[in-house]
Amino acid sequence: MFPKIGILGGGQLGRMFIQSAMNWNVEVHILDPDPEAPCKDIATSFRVGNLTDEDAVYQFAKDLDVITIEIENVSVSALEKLQAEGKKIYPQPEVIRIIQDKRTQKQFYQQHQIPTADFRLIENATQLKDHLDFLPAFQKLGSGGYDGRGVIKLEDEFHLDRAFDAPSILEKLTDVWTEISVIIARNPKGEIAVFPPVEMVFNPEYNLVDYLLAPAQISHETLQKAEQLARQVITAFDMVGILAIEMFLTSTGELLVNEVAPRPHNSGHQSIEANFTSQYEQHLRAILDLPLGDTQIRSYSAMVNLLGEKDCEGEAIYQGLEEAIAQKGVFVHLYGKKYTKPFRKMGHITILDNDLGKLREKVKWAKDKVKVIAVGI
Amino acid sequence: MFPKIGILGGGQLGRMFIQSAMNWNVEVHILDPDPEAPCKDIATSFRVGNLTDEDAVYQFAKDLDVITIEIENVSVSALEKLQAEGKKIYPQPEVIRIIQDKRTQKQFYQQHQIPTADFRLIENATQLKDHLDFLPAFQKLGSGGYDGRGVIKLEDEFHLDRAFDAPSILEKLTDVWTEISVIIARNPKGEIAVFPPVEMVFNPEYNLVDYLLAPAQISHETLQKAEQLARQVITAFDMVGILAIEMFLTSTGELLVNEVAPRPHNSGHQSIEANFTSQYEQHLRAILDLPLGDTQIRSYSAMVNLLGEKDCEGEAIYQGLEEAIAQKGVFVHLYGKKYTKPFRKMGHITILDNDLGKLREKVKWAKDKVKVIAVGI
Repeated sequence: MFPKIGILGGGQLGRMFIQSAMNWNVEVHILDPDPEAPCKDIATSFRVGNLTDEDAVYQFAKDLDVITIEIENVSVSALEKLQAEGKKIYPQPEVIRIIQDKRTQKQFYQQHQIPTADFRLIENATQLKDHLDFLPAFQKLGSGGYDGRGVIKLEDEFHLDRAFDAPSILEKLTDVWTEISVIIARNPKGEIAVFPPVEMVFNPEYNLVDYLLAPAQISHETLQKAEQLARQVITAFDMVGILAIEMFLTSTGELLVNEVAPRPHNSGHQSIEANFTSQYEQHLRAILDLPLGDTQIRSYSAMVNLLGEKDCEGEAIYQGLEEAIAQKGVFVHLYGKKYTKPFRKMGHITILDNDLGKLREKVKWAKDKVKVIAVGI
Repeated sequence: MFPKIGILGGGQLGRMFIQSAMNWNVEVHILDPDPEAPCKDIATSFRVGNLTDEDAVYQFAKDLDVITIEIENVSVSALEKLQAEGKKIYPQPEVIRIIQDKRTQKQFYQQHQIPTADFRLIENATQLKDHLDFLPAFQKLGSGGYDGRGVIKLEDEFHLDRAFDAPSILEKLTDVWTEISVIIARNPKGEIAVFPPVEMVFNPEYNLVDYLLAPAQISHETLQKAEQLARQVITAFDMVGILAIEMFLTSTGELLVNEVAPRPHNSGHQSIEANFTSQYEQHLRAILDLPLGDTQIRSYSAMVNLLGEKDCEGEAIYQGLEEAIAQKGVFVHLYGKKYTKPFRKMGHITILDNDLGKLREKVKWAKDKVKVIAVGI
């Protein structure tokens, strides 16, 4: 009944997308380099292959109808070839090409008058000494960064020895009051639907979302500005699918686009239980050219990432799950990963509570109690 | 981390159970006679075999840890053998044995002072003429009835030629004001959790749930009585797992147990979106001896069965889905069945709306608009 979907990448985002697609009997085929990827047992078909290998991607996708991604680091040339042959590729290859390099992504914002933190383009570590006036700043790798990797803070010239020696950007340190994420969807008809912004709290030790609160506790005016900015961004990209837009809210109330992900995103997991439509179903609707779903919240919520404990590597064990699920409004999602590593995303917990105080207490409780450790540690 | 679960039966109930079990990485293995059963692509393993064949059931289950069912018509002797070897069988074989025959089920209610409609035991059609004083009545087959089959109304002696010639019960026609269903769960520790009763509307033409409203619009007193009765029933069975208890509410306010199903049930589908815990996750919790989940509703809801249209047989086509999913609070579930038959359960629609009037309007709309027909018809 529906077209056959292929996803480049078979991690937790693909897994939750498949869980959603199952409700409508939609076939979802997966390509992933890891034979033990989270999608392997639940995809309609699962193929092992390198996502940046043009031939592997082409061979995987040539008999499918709609191709999407759950990671940006894929062979865009294969997608362009498939698009030229009439396949629907959402997000479009040209969007992925811009986004997969933080340098072209930043230049895109500049060209489209999309507010973003000041930056400079850097080709290698040596060039950094010409930009000492720009420190303190974040150095971000142009490509290859993922899940907290590829970002480093350079306070002053004495930090230069830790810098990346690769094409990158130097991004001016901004006075960030809070970080929010706005997830927005657009279908081929051009219909747009925006999820209420969420507020992300990052762990200072590793550059990953620790937990989030939804919706973000920001003024109505800022909320409207954020939604408007999200519309501007997805329209500038002219893209189809889900786009997660991470924004800095500065202490002066300014919104700056930090970076975007043209796919379901860590900052939208809670939508499975907390919104009328989840980000996964919304992406499915968008790429199948169906009417977009209602994005309204059904409840205030929080989402806590279950990351592998710092010093643990090996077969995963989950502590505190039984206590967690004994509580009302607590939803546990594990991603089917057998092995844990420090800070590996192993699952998440969604917490629903319309009392914001209690919600924050439950977040604290969950962060203290639920741990992913390794066998024998 | 969790024990390996096996389910006898791989239809839509097994499918929705697996969708829920995925969130916790629980392995679910399936045995079903139909190689195209709804669970085939999403189970950890899928084996084709007859559920009433003792050896097939035993061979399927002997390397698993916890065995459950999604249909009562299974080899109880195989389950008894497995239980004797230390497997956990929930619901327990002795419970399935009582329930799988409506005759022993009715006698069980009688023995345990559980209110139920008056009945007589019938061995064959010839005996019916000794019970003309008991008509009008329903004749219900002792075993083998399922999904609306195996029940016939006998108004008077002129109806006897349509009677079943098999062991059955003759059940006194009751003055039914409405039919409700109470889903209750019990874990091995004896903890019990009751879902709020739902109100079922049956289609007069075929004996299947047409739609339901949750929670049932009954007085607080009746609601409490229904929940109390449900506790009495699951305790009398001493069972572990989910038990769906269908009750008649008579015009005089009496509650009579009609029949029970010791498994997830059609009358609990809406719990996926409408309650804090779904019936599927609750069954999972119960049979894994985990704390039971909160059964409270998150919203008023309705559930409309998507049944194959009367005159349609063949490859299924779904009409009106796009219009349905365009509406807020409408959730479509298709069961992955390629072929439709008259009244075959092909999917369901859950509708959330806290305005009961609008909820009823949306039910009417969905029943009118969404249809399952066959290719070429």
